[in-house]
Amino acid sequence: MSSTDQNRQFRLAERPQGLPKQSDWELVSEAVAEPGNDEILVAVEYISLDPAMRGWMNAGKSYIKPVEIGELMRAGTAGTVLKSNHSDFAEGDKVSGNFGVQTHAVVAGKDARKVDTNLAELPAYLGVLGMPGMTAYFGLLDVGGVAEGETVVVSAASGAVGALVGQIAKLKGARVVGIAGSSEKCSYVTDELGFDAAIDYKNENVYKAMKEHCPKGIDVFFDNVGGEILDFALANLALKGRIVICGAISQYNATEGMYAPKNYMSLLVNRARMEGFVVFDYADRYGEAAKALADWLSEGKIKHREDIVEGFENFPDTLLKLFEGSNFGKLVLKV
Amino acid sequence: MSSTDQNRQFRLAERPQGLPKQSDWELVSEAVAEPGNDEILVAVEYISLDPAMRGWMNAGKSYIKPVEIGELMRAGTAGTVLKSNHSDFAEGDKVSGNFGVQTHAVVAGKDARKVDTNLAELPAYLGVLGMPGMTAYFGLLDVGGVAEGETVVVSAASGAVGALVGQIAKLKGARVVGIAGSSEKCSYVTDELGFDAAIDYKNENVYKAMKEHCPKGIDVFFDNVGGEILDFALANLALKGRIVICGAISQYNATEGMYAPKNYMSLLVNRARMEGFVVFDYADRYGEAAKALADWLSEGKIKHREDIVEGFENFPDTLLKLFEGSNFGKLVLKV
Repeated sequence: MSSTDQNRQFRLAERPQGLPKQSDWELVSEAVAEPGNDEILVAVEYISLDPAMRGWMNAGKSYIKPVEIGELMRAGTAGTVLKSNHSDFAEGDKVSGNFGVQTHAVVAGKDARKVDTNLAELPAYLGVLGMPGMTAYFGLLDVGGVAEGETVVVSAASGAVGALVGQIAKLKGARVVGIAGSSEKCSYVTDELGFDAAIDYKNENVYKAMKEHCPKGIDVFFDNVGGEILDFALANLALKGRIVICGAISQYNATEGMYAPKNYMSLLVNRARMEGFVVFDYADRYGEAAKALADWLSEGKIKHREDIVEGFENFPDTLLKLFEGSNFGKLVLKV
Repeated sequence: MSSTDQNRQFRLAERPQGLPKQSDWELVSEAVAEPGNDEILVAVEYISLDPAMRGWMNAGKSYIKPVEIGELMRAGTAGTVLKSNHSDFAEGDKVSGNFGVQTHAVVAGKDARKVDTNLAELPAYLGVLGMPGMTAYFGLLDVGGVAEGETVVVSAASGAVGALVGQIAKLKGARVVGIAGSSEKCSYVTDELGFDAAIDYKNENVYKAMKEHCPKGIDVFFDNVGGEILDFALANLALKGRIVICGAISQYNATEGMYAPKNYMSLLVNRARMEGFVVFDYADRYGEAAKALADWLSEGKIKHREDIVEGFENFPDTLLKLFEGSNFGKLVLKV
């Protein structure tokens, strides 16, 4: 690295109305900073693109403070240490952390996590071994409380979180039905990931298909998408069913208010509950999930798939793939 | 009683569309039956009118089987034993049970419960010491899991369940805000029942009033009404808040689908849950609740109020008072 190296950043220029547009972003270039005491300089190699990013772009109270106008866009990332002033890190170490949508990051050592690329390639630390992995693990096991023999339905089943939810549920002895947006994705979750059934929401009657594939009702519905599919799940709940609200990607760009679940009184009829969670609350237990996921991975019990798009400058367009559902697997931008 | 005595019954004639009409009922008169082995004959004196009755009149799967066309309408009741062929009961005993909307009931002794009219008058066994009491107790304590210092909001606060929810919450050390439909009802819950505040939903901006009276957010929202008020509560939830879905009286007569809660993603933002329950599931613990409620009652720690309408034949019109909100306290029909 020479002193003329530039750090490129995507900053939030405007709060989007509906789908984020190119003009909602500002691409900025500045000299790479020097790390101070206990800091490291990281060359960001992979940037995680997550549905939650859309929420971070909105003003107003949420589970995390919004990205402000003019601020670096928040993102999970993985890369290589270029310089280290922190005793835990050496040049060449592979690390992950929330370094944002930029090519070079100067961060406190305490905010970086060393990763083992013998266990899995770097992008996996943004998916199966990263936030999506933690999200699936705690959402399904702690919030959903899945038990052997139960029926689990997961939406966005071929996505980063959904694919893991289904595989962990299978490992726990559940019957698993995935919902995805193409026959190719459906084949993937049944043939590759071992789900018991899949529903192609773009080409099937989801309500009827749920009824058919879940003859005893749904014990755990892990929802990543919201909208009408949530209503169908409510209508197909089993007694004492649990709906885990992980996200609502179908609604994040709605400009006229979110779809509201008409069938919520099914919660009363079925003595059921609907519960939201935020993975950050489990930070003090990430180690437990990371170990379980790494063990399953090294034993070949879980599979993962990344959808890697190259070119830092393609960030704005690549993010839109999530909302179109055109990614297949964990969406990652390669710098 | 002479052999010419008649039992009068209200039977369901038609499934109502919207509010039940006179023509949805059939008033039938027949000779009073003789009790068989282990049966008793009860002169029904008080009939409980409950919001849940509206749901029982609909076809389709619910938490209890619907009342069929031509069947006696289901209802909680209290009265006096006229004849007994069961060793646990003697003529003159006061009893309660689900004997239906009729003046004379022949029932199995096991389906009747002897009550103590020294502790409270007979109608109280349809309210504070009956199903509404059980509902408030288990809904607030088991489903809501209220803790000392928390903020509880209850809708239909002057009603049979709501009034108790608030008083039990106060006994548990919570701050309590009630929502009711007139200034008179609001004064009752604050001045008589000791709630910390009340919101008159017919004359106040409920969203703003909730914000004002719950500066730290709502920890437990006990919902009897549904509709917009549920949405306002979602918008005012505290972190880890619990919404207890007990009923949705504002929506039971909706002919174009129920109001759907737009703000359900507040469950995610606040890591909160919304859970439904049915009091019948707690049948094996009714004794615990009955004892607690009777103790509080005899110690003067809880108050109750019945709104008693006279005349068996007035059943159809009296039931409508619930949906108009024109009752004040537990609505009971005196035969």
